[in-house]
Amino acid sequence: MQRLLIIHGPNLNLLGKRPVNVYGTLSLEEINKKIEEYAKKNNLKVKIIQSNNESEIIEIIQKAEEEFDGIIINPAGYTHTSVAIRDSIEAINIPVIEVHLSNIHAREEFRRKSMIAPVCEGQISGFGYKSYLLAIDYFLKRRD
Amino acid sequence: MQRLLIIHGPNLNLLGKRPVNVYGTLSLEEINKKIEEYAKKNNLKVKIIQSNNESEIIEIIQKAEEEFDGIIINPAGYTHTSVAIRDSIEAINIPVIEVHLSNIHAREEFRRKSMIAPVCEGQISGFGYKSYLLAIDYFLKRRD
Amino acid sequence: MQRLLIIHGPNLNLLGKRPVNVYGTLSLEEINKKIEEYAKKNNLKVKIIQSNNESEIIEIIQKAEEEFDGIIINPAGYTHTSVAIRDSIEAINIPVIEVHLSNIHAREEFRRKSMIAPVCEGQISGFGYKSYLLAIDYFLKRRD
Amino acid sequence: MQRLLIIHGPNLNLLGKRPVNVYGTLSLEEINKKIEEYAKKNNLKVKIIQSNNESEIIEIIQKAEEEFDGIIINPAGYTHTSVAIRDSIEAINIPVIEVHLSNIHAREEFRRKSMIAPVCEGQISGFGYKSYLLAIDYFLKRRD
Amino acid sequence: MQRLLIIHGPNLNLLGKRPVNVYGTLSLEEINKKIEEYAKKNNLKVKIIQSNNESEIIEIIQKAEEEFDGIIINPAGYTHTSVAIRDSIEAINIPVIEVHLSNIHAREEFRRKSMIAPVCEGQISGFGYKSYLLAIDYFLKRRD
Amino acid sequence: MQRLLIIHGPNLNLLGKRPVNVYGTLSLEEINKKIEEYAKKNNLKVKIIQSNNESEIIEIIQKAEEEFDGIIINPAGYTHTSVAIRDSIEAINIPVIEVHLSNIHAREEFRRKSMIAPVCEGQISGFGYKSYLLAIDYFLKRRD
Amino acid sequence: MQRLLIIHGPNLNLLGKRPVNVYGTLSLEEINKKIEEYAKKNNLKVKIIQSNNESEIIEIIQKAEEEFDGIIINPAGYTHTSVAIRDSIEAINIPVIEVHLSNIHAREEFRRKSMIAPVCEGQISGFGYKSYLLAIDYFLKRRD
Amino acid sequence: MQRLLIIHGPNLNLLGKRPVNVYGTLSLEEINKKIEEYAKKNNLKVKIIQSNNESEIIEIIQKAEEEFDGIIINPAGYTHTSVAIRDSIEAINIPVIEVHLSNIHAREEFRRKSMIAPVCEGQISGFGYKSYLLAIDYFLKRRD
Amino acid sequence: MQRLLIIHGPNLNLLGKRPVNVYGTLSLEEINKKIEEYAKKNNLKVKIIQSNNESEIIEIIQKAEEEFDGIIINPAGYTHTSVAIRDSIEAINIPVIEVHLSNIHAREEFRRKSMIAPVCEGQISGFGYKSYLLAIDYFLKRRD
Amino acid sequence: MQRLLIIHGPNLNLLGKRPVNVYGTLSLEEINKKIEEYAKKNNLKVKIIQSNNESEIIEIIQKAEEEFDGIIINPAGYTHTSVAIRDSIEAINIPVIEVHLSNIHAREEFRRKSMIAPVCEGQISGFGYKSYLLAIDYFLKRRD
Amino acid sequence: MQRLLIIHGPNLNLLGKRPVNVYGTLSLEEINKKIEEYAKKNNLKVKIIQSNNESEIIEIIQKAEEEFDGIIINPAGYTHTSVAIRDSIEAINIPVIEVHLSNIHAREEFRRKSMIAPVCEGQISGFGYKSYLLAIDYFLKRRD
Amino acid sequence: MQRLLIIHGPNLNLLGKRPVNVYGTLSLEEINKKIEEYAKKNNLKVKIIQSNNESEIIEIIQKAEEEFDGIIINPAGYTHTSVAIRDSIEAINIPVIEVHLSNIHAREEFRRKSMIAPVCEGQISGFGYKSYLLAIDYFLKRRD
Repeated sequence: MQRLLIIHGPNLNLLGKRPVNVYGTLSLEEINKKIEEYAKKNNLKVKIIQSNNESEIIEIIQKAEEEFDGIIINPAGYTHTSVAIRDSIEAINIPVIEVHLSNIHAREEFRRKSMIAPVCEGQISGFGYKSYLLAIDYFLKRRD
Repeated sequence: MQRLLIIHGPNLNLLGKRPVNVYGTLSLEEINKKIEEYAKKNNLKVKIIQSNNESEIIEIIQKAEEEFDGIIINPAGYTHTSVAIRDSIEAINIPVIEVHLSNIHAREEFRRKSMIAPVCEGQISGFGYKSYLLAIDYFLKRRD
Repeated sequence: MQRLLIIHGPNLNLLGKRPVNVYGTLSLEEINKKIEEYAKKNNLKVKIIQSNNESEIIEIIQKAEEEFDGIIINPAGYTHTSVAIRDSIEAINIPVIEVHLSNIHAREEFRRKSMIAPVCEGQISGFGYKSYLLAIDYFLKRRD
Repeated sequence: MQRLLIIHGPNLNLLGKRPVNVYGTLSLEEINKKIEEYAKKNNLKVKIIQSNNESEIIEIIQKAEEEFDGIIINPAGYTHTSVAIRDSIEAINIPVIEVHLSNIHAREEFRRKSMIAPVCEGQISGFGYKSYLLAIDYFLKRRD
Repeated sequence: MQRLLIIHGPNLNLLGKRPVNVYGTLSLEEINKKIEEYAKKNNLKVKIIQSNNESEIIEIIQKAEEEFDGIIINPAGYTHTSVAIRDSIEAINIPVIEVHLSNIHAREEFRRKSMIAPVCEGQISGFGYKSYLLAIDYFLKRRD
Repeated sequence: MQRLLIIHGPNLNLLGKRPVNVYGTLSLEEINKKIEEYAKKNNLKVKIIQSNNESEIIEIIQKAEEEFDGIIINPAGYTHTSVAIRDSIEAINIPVIEVHLSNIHAREEFRRKSMIAPVCEGQISGFGYKSYLLAIDYFLKRRD
Repeated sequence: MQRLLIIHGPNLNLLGKRPVNVYGTLSLEEINKKIEEYAKKNNLKVKIIQSNNESEIIEIIQKAEEEFDGIIINPAGYTHTSVAIRDSIEAINIPVIEVHLSNIHAREEFRRKSMIAPVCEGQISGFGYKSYLLAIDYFLKRRD
Repeated sequence: MQRLLIIHGPNLNLLGKRPVNVYGTLSLEEINKKIEEYAKKNNLKVKIIQSNNESEIIEIIQKAEEEFDGIIINPAGYTHTSVAIRDSIEAINIPVIEVHLSNIHAREEFRRKSMIAPVCEGQISGFGYKSYLLAIDYFLKRRD
Repeated sequence: MQRLLIIHGPNLNLLGKRPVNVYGTLSLEEINKKIEEYAKKNNLKVKIIQSNNESEIIEIIQKAEEEFDGIIINPAGYTHTSVAIRDSIEAINIPVIEVHLSNIHAREEFRRKSMIAPVCEGQISGFGYKSYLLAIDYFLKRRD
Repeated sequence: MQRLLIIHGPNLNLLGKRPVNVYGTLSLEEINKKIEEYAKKNNLKVKIIQSNNESEIIEIIQKAEEEFDGIIINPAGYTHTSVAIRDSIEAINIPVIEVHLSNIHAREEFRRKSMIAPVCEGQISGFGYKSYLLAIDYFLKRRD
Repeated sequence: MQRLLIIHGPNLNLLGKRPVNVYGTLSLEEINKKIEEYAKKNNLKVKIIQSNNESEIIEIIQKAEEEFDGIIINPAGYTHTSVAIRDSIEAINIPVIEVHLSNIHAREEFRRKSMIAPVCEGQISGFGYKSYLLAIDYFLKRRD
Repeated sequence: MQRLLIIHGPNLNLLGKRPVNVYGTLSLEEINKKIEEYAKKNNLKVKIIQSNNESEIIEIIQKAEEEFDGIIINPAGYTHTSVAIRDSIEAINIPVIEVHLSNIHAREEFRRKSMIAPVCEGQISGFGYKSYLLAIDYFLKRRD
């Protein structure tokens, strides 16, 4: 049974409240419930963490490989600037998938470049909360 | 039963041959077989087309909405330059998903920017042939 | 009696369907009819071609001077990238006018620069289908 | 009967004198005469103004809508730098057409970008004095 | 009793008419009245000038120090390009405050950089006509 | 009675110590006292927080709308880089004003661009501690 | 006996006609004759293809290794933009030489950067039709 | 006897007052006196004009060739932005020399590039009021 | 006896684990032991802190001057982006030395520019853990 | 009998020693021997010079036309920066060919742009020591 | 009696030979003679040196202040790149004037920026050999 | 006993004379004496060379490995532009350390980027003459 760590980055605790046309109307709790049900249905163990704190995210990533088989991270506002999160991902040995609710390639210019994606296995962007489910789908298929 | 059109862009007919460290060892036929089996298992109808021809791709996209509920496209070398493919996608009314075998965000600078992604529903990049399967997964979940 | 070749570039066959706020509601057929009537009224012979294919457009341009006195081209998505169409125009000896339905100077940054315009006699941009009629007006006045 | 205001920007009073290979040999008076005759023939009322003065041009534009149905402006050297002229055009409710004698897309890099065009209805560039006549043609067709 | 000079730059005479979503519905006269009342209430003497003319603005600034204790300037369209206004401000010895009705940092890229602000005491941007009142508030507090 | 939250960003606790020619000689305590007196005099309730911590600032902003009618923030070193603080401001529904002690437009190039200002109501920069008082002045006038 | 494939890109069929000061007065037929004679004299087998079509060029390259020992390509207008041709060359295992008639380093800025050269064995530019002969010379020396 | 026109651009009427470390302590009157004496001594006729007005400068240049054999211009703040002054110089047939009091190559980045210099005979920069005298020296030597 | 504070930035707690070809095989504990022994041998007092937290690093720097004579900092991932750490260093009065294990000038482009170095006394980069020892050497020589 | 001057630029005396994967294993002596034999076989006279000295290279070029019919130059490290070598080539009247051992278009970005090539007849890059032989081949064919 | 050192940079020994339309037809000897006569007539002592060698120029500059009261340098091809010549000028205490025969502001983009001018007293560009005479004129006037 | 070669680049012979606020008051002789004493005390053999000549520096580097175990180089003005020195360092097999007296990261933008550092073992910048001593310290520790 695979164990996955899901990391929601800064401000995602505000979901449902943040610009609805960009992020949708679901709250983070509703999204988390969907992720948990999906994991359960697919026989996966997930732990979900939300943090607004860059260093907390770094430390969670640093310790993740003891307990988890993979990470799904939505770095949100840290996507475009955090060399430190990038370095923490580069230093560990479990696969990391970057996900985004909105299609970052269709937004402001500064949101189009990710500092994180180059050290991840891949990036999934634009499918709302389903971006997380697709990342789970990938972990289910990964060893095929 | 959803009907999906899968478009492989230029040079993908060479898969298995092209730099193996970047694109993996599977041939396009093997990948197509995996896609077809996956679609069948999930009760979807897929049609798969490979073309090295920008205008052919444009015309396939233009006509797709009569026959299909969605498009999964790997624009390959046209990803970074084709305003014309972009315009064809912007003009139709079915959802389009951009996929890439390799993680384009981890390669040459010029491969990091997609002209196509801003007019797609989302982008999935870096999961080998499984990028296509994840796009199918999305279509399965899309109306949830 | 002047003979003019009118070339509609990629995706213009979708007119009326493409984002209406940008390109208007007329179909290509309706526009062509207006062009033909206008030519007739002004005692000009026009041939109208639409192509999504860069090389087809190149070859049409290459051969145009045998049969026509001038070209009116809307290069659409190829406007911003096609060195090859530019080179074909530079190589022939009849005047070429670049036209655009929308005001390309008021759209996305990448649409503001034309690779084609520097080798044309002039550019007319932003008047809907009337951009074509103005180009015809120019040919009527050209030898004055 | 439509009333149009024609604004010639800085240095256009020197026409015929300025580099002939770029601007042609006609003087401004000759051009104005051609414009006036053309307007008359087409049953339009035109008023023609030449000014080297940015603020004068601004004020002419500001007041134009009381008296005119449209403006044809050749902003000449102010094309590439004047935010203030741009703002004056954006503030009024009659259509404005930007015209250029020479093909600005075929000249020095700094002449290729217009600050004015994005707030105009369209741009006509490269047809000598006929650029003005084409703009008149547009006003004649505008309500069709 | 402090004496302040208020300079409204180009096109601000059109206020109420210019894009309402950007600049609000008040006319310049209404704004001026609010400024005058506010000044009176606060025991300040203000003189208000509007000019569309760069050189006139320069000359007003050059002479201001004989008569005034400070300047509040909204350079409008000249904000982003006028080295000459900048130089006039740098040459005088009374404090100058740059104000903007709209939040220039939230608009087109070219409006984000001010040539004027680096030689002013400070910049106030985004508060509608209240930007002027805040600048007055600053002069009231300045010697505290 | 309006309630305002004042957020001092990183290193502002060092005020009076940091380069005196740039930031002045007042300590943060002295500035806070001035702010509090000014608020009291004007019948406003203020709460003042200083934090060097990006995530703490984010969380303070996220919760502010329950308790406050507006925020005055000096993001200091986070002004130029923090997408995450920007996103937190964009997600809440009370007005936010960005203030700076120094005139950031007159300093190093990298300090001229704010990531925060585009999602604020406005920006006030260059008036020393009085930048905060002016922001308070704005809140006093806001509903006029 | 080595077998070489010579690919002439778009518009090269117009040689002799295209700007003579840049490309010389020889027609493509004359150049091809010179290439064929030179190959014959040097005991090489050459096949010469001209195509204006990007996808046709891609497919010719894809199949070349079955029949040829090397490719000499003049990508002409596709030199500067075609990621797809680049990818096709990267995918095959026979050496490819890029040639140009004119010295592309001495022309417009946009012609100075080749997307193709980085995946070729080398580039020969500026020697008129002799660029092709030099590429043949290289193949003759290649196994020394 | 040569007749020269000397044009001082915007804000030069403030000389002696403007930042002394950059422009020196002489007033414009003192500089003009030195120029006039120098001209007299060298048997030249000079007319000196100062204007803060871009269009006035343009018109002075336009008419200069009737009355003068050459122009010495210090375009000051218009140096870096005025395409219109550039165009007026390009249109006349007498030699124009650009001069600067300060060494513009040693100041802010935006002052290093002149829009005017490319259409002048030459540029003299950095010698205080002596820059004007050197330009006169040049006219004295010009026909040698 | 000099007292030095050594600050290891984010992810340096992973040393020995992070890409070995870049950072070497020693763990942070081993490096710290070497630093401590070296300090002891040279009669210096060192305190070593590792933090992944930008604000914690800022606060450590802010307080350092009460207890220490100098700081040796390896800002790691914060090197390239943290204006806030830069500002904290600029605000204190003890010398700060920036060190890097790897040669940052030989890595990805984004790692070549330090936001921190301009406010440090100097930078030492590329000597593995010996970069720290060299910084200690500097403090030993500093008052010579 | 043609006389050619071959100039090897800086560090080429180290060939065989410099990074073997980039430049091959042949020493400069071995390469020179191959060039000399090839010249002899083709009835050409060559003189070969290696210099690490920019000014020496300039002076050799300046004097070359007295004694030689053409120059083959590998400017090595001076390729990308030397305006002075460029100017010396532009000043003489014999043809100059730029050659490179490695494919400079496939290396670091700064090696892709040549300051020298725009004033040469052509450039040959990427064929190891055979680049020199191809340049000789060109001189043999040049007068055909 | 002032003593001046005149330094002609690389390739100026070719004058009269180099592109005549840019540099004129006079040889360096003829120019030197004109300079010497002019100096004599004006009671100045000049020493003239031409060097193609950057380090020689540096060393001449370094020693100049023992023997000379000023330097007139035409750095030619080193103008745009030599930090080392710049540093040598910055290190000495006699005034240095940069001169150019051609108007460098009217040539290729890379010739418009001087690395040398910012550390000189001024720059004189575009007057042929008279640029040197004007620099001498300046030294004659310098102490007025 | 290690043997080190110390190379001082251009203009360092002027030390003590060059801008004192940037480089300090010690002459090169005094610095060399300190280096020699330090080397002696630490049982190292050093040879010190100063050269203003790029090619001389290249040749010294090329030959260094026969006689020395390492190089300490201050490339001074050549740091930012010399591809040729870079190539010579890349070609030899002994470690090279780049040092700078001043903190190059705190000076003009063009001094921040080193062409040399990417091929050195490391860079030490900002410690005055002690930068050399620290480089020696590194060689003493290098084999630990």
